[in-house]
Amino acid sequence: MSTSIPAYAARAAGAPLELIGHDPGPLPVDEVEITVESCGLCHSDLTMIDNELGFCSYPMIAGHEIIGTISAVGAHVTTRQIGQKVGLGWYARSCLACPQCLSGNHNLCPQAQPTIVGRAGGFAERVRCQWIWATPVPETVEAASAGPMFCGGITVFNPLVQFGISPTDRVGVIGIGGLGHLALKFLHRWGCEVVAFTSSDNKRQEALDFGASRVVNSRNREEMQSLQGSLDFILCTVNATLDWPVILQALAPQGRLHFVGLVLEPIPVSVPQLLPSQSSLSGSPLGSPATMSTLLDFAGRHRITPQAEFFPMSRINDAIAHLRAGKARYRIVLQADF
Amino acid sequence: MSTSIPAYAARAAGAPLELIGHDPGPLPVDEVEITVESCGLCHSDLTMIDNELGFCSYPMIAGHEIIGTISAVGAHVTTRQIGQKVGLGWYARSCLACPQCLSGNHNLCPQAQPTIVGRAGGFAERVRCQWIWATPVPETVEAASAGPMFCGGITVFNPLVQFGISPTDRVGVIGIGGLGHLALKFLHRWGCEVVAFTSSDNKRQEALDFGASRVVNSRNREEMQSLQGSLDFILCTVNATLDWPVILQALAPQGRLHFVGLVLEPIPVSVPQLLPSQSSLSGSPLGSPATMSTLLDFAGRHRITPQAEFFPMSRINDAIAHLRAGKARYRIVLQADF
Repeated sequence: MSTSIPAYAARAAGAPLELIGHDPGPLPVDEVEITVESCGLCHSDLTMIDNELGFCSYPMIAGHEIIGTISAVGAHVTTRQIGQKVGLGWYARSCLACPQCLSGNHNLCPQAQPTIVGRAGGFAERVRCQWIWATPVPETVEAASAGPMFCGGITVFNPLVQFGISPTDRVGVIGIGGLGHLALKFLHRWGCEVVAFTSSDNKRQEALDFGASRVVNSRNREEMQSLQGSLDFILCTVNATLDWPVILQALAPQGRLHFVGLVLEPIPVSVPQLLPSQSSLSGSPLGSPATMSTLLDFAGRHRITPQAEFFPMSRINDAIAHLRAGKARYRIVLQADF
Repeated sequence: MSTSIPAYAARAAGAPLELIGHDPGPLPVDEVEITVESCGLCHSDLTMIDNELGFCSYPMIAGHEIIGTISAVGAHVTTRQIGQKVGLGWYARSCLACPQCLSGNHNLCPQAQPTIVGRAGGFAERVRCQWIWATPVPETVEAASAGPMFCGGITVFNPLVQFGISPTDRVGVIGIGGLGHLALKFLHRWGCEVVAFTSSDNKRQEALDFGASRVVNSRNREEMQSLQGSLDFILCTVNATLDWPVILQALAPQGRLHFVGLVLEPIPVSVPQLLPSQSSLSGSPLGSPATMSTLLDFAGRHRITPQAEFFPMSRINDAIAHLRAGKARYRIVLQADF
């Protein structure tokens, strides 16, 4: 049995969101329904609302950094309970049967379904997902601000796990925004020496407060060259075109330049630059349910929270305008007020 | 005390080699002198003889795939003995004190000295190197053909060690030449499923004989697309410009495209292609002394030998012409006949 769910939807690409009633039909047997308490607002929501990638259908309900409480479980769900506090991020379903799902890398499942593509997301009173993607939120985590952990947070935390970043490593973070500020917080507690790259001088002090050991202006060639050969890992959280050869020069032998932001312009990689020092270049998307749980444990233990601005969900269009204006410091969380 | 050493030298860029007498001066205290028994002829020798990279001085003595017997040891050398059978490859010296040397990655030492740059190589009666770069050749290895293991061999073997290639992995090898044919032999014995990429249909049968499970024409789009998402590791041994997006598509999730050939034209890497499947791109140079010993043990145990053509060293100019004509099948070894 299902009822109409209040939700904020875009009726066309780029349109302001409107409160609509959305009927998702019967709850699938392996899904849960979550009553939304809060939902982060992410750049990817705007990308989808604006149909930048061309595959969205309307009306569309975005929102994929969700914290809430399970209010219904499908007939076959045995490992999630009504009343349980959970979070839901970019993915809401995966096949569970492919080699990636079987190996615990559900985020690499070729059939993984994004929460807001072909489905209805978290700018709503209730949202649904396959049980495995509803990650229990431990009590050590401050739930009110935890939504952004489920997209921005996991995106930067996952590579630390995937590539075995060591507390003895020197790590660079390019871009101190929604993702980058969380990377600084994680890496600081991870035990690393952390260099923040930013072109905004007004973020310098905040980057230090988030945990950077040092802040470098990525557009200052002299500062960049002082880093030559020094960083074991550079995490690029922006999607701008940068001076890639200079950034690659900052890598230590066996270093890695890793992308989590969708840099659309191809990066001209010089093999003669990679080869002598055994450097790598890579990218990764989000993280698996297991890594999400690891993140929450780590964040809870170290009291790491996103730096968030709060809006009631009824003011979602104001929040979107704030994000579009580049004013978000550093992540926006919408509090459900249906 | 030193005497003049007979050697084949180029007196100018690209010139035919001439037999000269070369006086290297007193033997440094931490070096050994090796009486050359054989020396492989590598494309990199031609690159240096031709001064393609612009930093060679003349007369130059190339040759860096050396097998021989130690005939003199410097005053401070305690771990190599006169009469010991050893091999010497691309590097002849490293600092021993930098973080890379201290970690056993001597091949990543920023001060590593190539055997044929600023030094005299193995196209000579005798050649010298720092003791650590004279790797003992075990009796299980057929010394007569082992020279190419010290450059071509270690170049393709090292990444299998560095990146923890597993016997359960599916691996592609691009280019079935001096390096590629050794990669096929190693990977076959490593236990992997091995796909050989070649644009020469006449190498198909030989690739299978070397150990390929399957041979694919890299210029055939249909064959390439049949591999989509299937290879855990692709080793690129050529320096040609290929259809990189199609090759990247062949990577399985968490796969790696690895370069050991100096592709000079920048590779336009699409982050949106790397990111969803957590792919990596990388390069590596040669290998460390420890990895060289591991290679020799592995090759000895599995009776892996380079497929070599033999020339007496006195016919070195004929051998060079053979290599320049692209006729080498698959590696040339010069036998010392001073």
